[in-house]
Amino acid sequence: MKTTRVFVPGSIGNVGPGLDILGLAVRGAGDTVVAERRRGRGVLVADAGHPNLPTDPHRHASAIAAQAALDLGGRRGRFAMTISLIKGLPLSGGQGGSAASAVAGAVAANVLMGRPLGTPELLSAALAAEATVAGRHLDNIAPSLLGGLVLIRSLDPIDVISIPTPRGLWIVLAKPAYELETRRGRSVLPRLVRRTDALHQAAQIAAMVAAGFANDAARFGQAVEDRIAEPVRAPLLPGFAQAKRAALHAGAFGCSISGSGPTLFALAGSRASATAIGAAVSRAYARAGHRSTIRVTTVDHVGARIR
Amino acid sequence: MKTTRVFVPGSIGNVGPGLDILGLAVRGAGDTVVAERRRGRGVLVADAGHPNLPTDPHRHASAIAAQAALDLGGRRGRFAMTISLIKGLPLSGGQGGSAASAVAGAVAANVLMGRPLGTPELLSAALAAEATVAGRHLDNIAPSLLGGLVLIRSLDPIDVISIPTPRGLWIVLAKPAYELETRRGRSVLPRLVRRTDALHQAAQIAAMVAAGFANDAARFGQAVEDRIAEPVRAPLLPGFAQAKRAALHAGAFGCSISGSGPTLFALAGSRASATAIGAAVSRAYARAGHRSTIRVTTVDHVGARIR
Repeated sequence: MKTTRVFVPGSIGNVGPGLDILGLAVRGAGDTVVAERRRGRGVLVADAGHPNLPTDPHRHASAIAAQAALDLGGRRGRFAMTISLIKGLPLSGGQGGSAASAVAGAVAANVLMGRPLGTPELLSAALAAEATVAGRHLDNIAPSLLGGLVLIRSLDPIDVISIPTPRGLWIVLAKPAYELETRRGRSVLPRLVRRTDALHQAAQIAAMVAAGFANDAARFGQAVEDRIAEPVRAPLLPGFAQAKRAALHAGAFGCSISGSGPTLFALAGSRASATAIGAAVSRAYARAGHRSTIRVTTVDHVGARIR
Repeated sequence: MKTTRVFVPGSIGNVGPGLDILGLAVRGAGDTVVAERRRGRGVLVADAGHPNLPTDPHRHASAIAAQAALDLGGRRGRFAMTISLIKGLPLSGGQGGSAASAVAGAVAANVLMGRPLGTPELLSAALAAEATVAGRHLDNIAPSLLGGLVLIRSLDPIDVISIPTPRGLWIVLAKPAYELETRRGRSVLPRLVRRTDALHQAAQIAAMVAAGFANDAARFGQAVEDRIAEPVRAPLLPGFAQAKRAALHAGAFGCSISGSGPTLFALAGSRASATAIGAAVSRAYARAGHRSTIRVTTVDHVGARIR
C-alpha cells in the first residue's frame, strides 16, 4: 500500500463518572489522516490540519502515533511516510479530537506497513501521542479505534473491554463558543477523593455497564453522575450548570461534561427527545451569554475505518 | 400466617474491589429465623442463636429488622412476634452473618403480616439492623435477600441491580480460626483515597459486571483486585497474604477478603480446581500457625426462602 485515508470518529471521554476509564464513540464528525509512503526515514507532516496545530512531527498527535506504530512494527529508521490531517473535530473541545488524530495516524501507519499491528499495539501507539499532547489516558482512544462504548480496565498492561450500548440511545453534544485546554481541565482534578465518593462513583460506572448489557437507555443515562471531575470542572465552564439543568428538565436521561469540556453531552431515548434537549441546551447557553454548536447524533459502532 | 421459618444464605461482601457496593450470595451455610405471631406488641427474642448474641430485641439483628419491617408495614404497636434464630453462619466471620440474620427477621415479619412489603422495604428494614450492629451498607443484605450477585447503585434512595454471574463459577471460602469484628475491619478504612486508585478500583468493578454478563469466569476473577480495603485490612489478618498467594498459585482466578474478614474467598472455574485451591489455602494457613475451615461451594441464586 502506498497511500491510505483513515477516518476516525470523535468520542465522549469519561461519559460522566468514568473519568479516564469509560469512553463512547460518537457518529458524525471525526478526523481523517491521508498518509503516503515515501522514501527516506520518519514521519513528515504535510498538513497539520489546523493553523493552531504544530507541523513538528514530534508534537503532532497523528505523527507521534504514526511513528510509534512504525517503531512497534519494527520499522524504526526503515520506513518513511507523509501525513496530512483533515481536522473535523474541534480543538480543545472535549470531543476526543487529539485521540482521533492519534488513532488515525497509528492506523494509517499500520495500513501502509501491511497491517502487522493488532489492537493492543494500535492502542499503545496512539497512547504515546495522547500522553504527549493531552494526558496518558485511553478513554477517547479506545472507543475512537474500536467504536462503541469501551471500558479501560487497565493501562499497564493495556486491557480494554467493549461494552454494548442500549439500543435507541441518542446523544446531544453542545459545544459552547469557548475553549478549555485538556491540560487545564486535568489540572483541577483532586489528587485525593473521599472514599465514599470513590465508591459511589464506582457504583455508577458499574451500573452504566450493567445497563448497557441490559439494553436500558434510561438506566444508562441515570447513572451518569460524576462526583469527582464534574464538581471541579463545572466552575471553569460558564453556562454549563444552567445548560445541564435545561437538558435534564427537557428529558435527558443524563448529562455531564464530555471529556474535560467544554462540550456538554446529554443522553436521550429518541431523536425527537434529543432534538428538544439540544434546543433547550442552546437556549440556556444563550441566556448565559454564550453561543453554542449543537449536534444530535448516535453511537458510532465502527470506530476507525479506511475511506 | 401464625408461624414461619425463613432461611437466608450467607454472602461475600465487597467481592474484592466492590467495597460496600458489590455482594455475592453463597450456597450452603445460612441463618434461619423461626417466627411466631403472638399477642401483645413488639418483637421478642426467644433464642438469640448464639451465646454471644444479645437477647435484647433492640440489639439483635433479626429482631431490629423484624421491628423495622412491622413499622414499614404500618403495624407499629399493633403486632407482636417471637423470634428464634438458628445461627448457621460464623459470628464476625466476614460471611455476611449479621446481614443474613437481619434479612431473615425482616422476611419473617413480612410473611407473618401477609406480605405487604416489597424488595425496597425489606432491604430498608434489614439495613436498619445492619446499620446498628455492623455498619450501614447493603452489600451483604441485598444478595442474601435476592440471591446471586448484586450491585448497590445507591443507598439513598435504595437502588440495587442484580448482575448475572458466570456459569461454572466455584467459590472457596476459608475461615481461619480467629475473629475480626466488622467494626475493627471498618475502622482501618482510609477516609481519603488516591484518585488514581479510585478509578482503577472502579474499572475493576465495572469489569466484573461486564464479565458477569459476558459469562466469563476467568475475567470475572481477574478483576478481583482491591486497592482500597485489602491493603489496610490484610495486616489485621495473620496468614492471609500467604494463603492468597497459595490460592493464586493453585489456579484461583481471583482471591481477596470476604467482607471485612477474616474469611478469605477465592474464585475458580471447576469443583476440582476449587478443591485444590481450598487444600492449598488450608496448608498455607497451617504453616502460618492457624487452623482454618474450608468450604467449596457455588453461587446461591435463590436468596431468602421460606422453609
